[in-house]
Amino acid sequence: MLKAIVTIHLKKSILDPQGSAVHRALKALGYQGVEEVRVGKHIEVFLADTNKGEAEEKVKEMCAKLLANPVIEDYRIEIVEVGA
Amino acid sequence: MLKAIVTIHLKKSILDPQGSAVHRALKALGYQGVEEVRVGKHIEVFLADTNKGEAEEKVKEMCAKLLANPVIEDYRIEIVEVGA
Repeated sequence: MLKAIVTIHLKKSILDPQGSAVHRALKALGYQGVEEVRVGKHIEVFLADTNKGEAEEKVKEMCAKLLANPVIEDYRIEIVEVGA
Repeated sequence: MLKAIVTIHLKKSILDPQGSAVHRALKALGYQGVEEVRVGKHIEVFLADTNKGEAEEKVKEMCAKLLANPVIEDYRIEIVEVGA
């Protein structure tokens, strides 16, 4: 079995309201030296596939169709093997 | 500058409605071999700190106080250096 780890974040040019809210909350809790906070999604897709190359192509397609919004988000895919 | 990468997921014993919804949507799009989908958060905290050990302790505290819910979520912290 393979696990696709998809990390999705808003593009740098896009305002990140969640990140800003967390940043303000950390300041309110008294934390110093917090320069910026960015909040994104971390999606794990467990696949019965065994071929990493094919799995990566499949997950890229999933990102384009469903998991990420290519207009405002960037994403990164990592394929790892997991125990059956 | 340091960047803390915090990955947060629901504990395995907790139902993941977001993950189930994405799983059903992928099936509806015709994808075969998708065993499970888990959706979590990927938070990047940029810190003016320079000491990795101190930064990790600080971010652990941030997770306990704000970023993660220890009752239902697990989290992982990675500290990396980023260009100034």
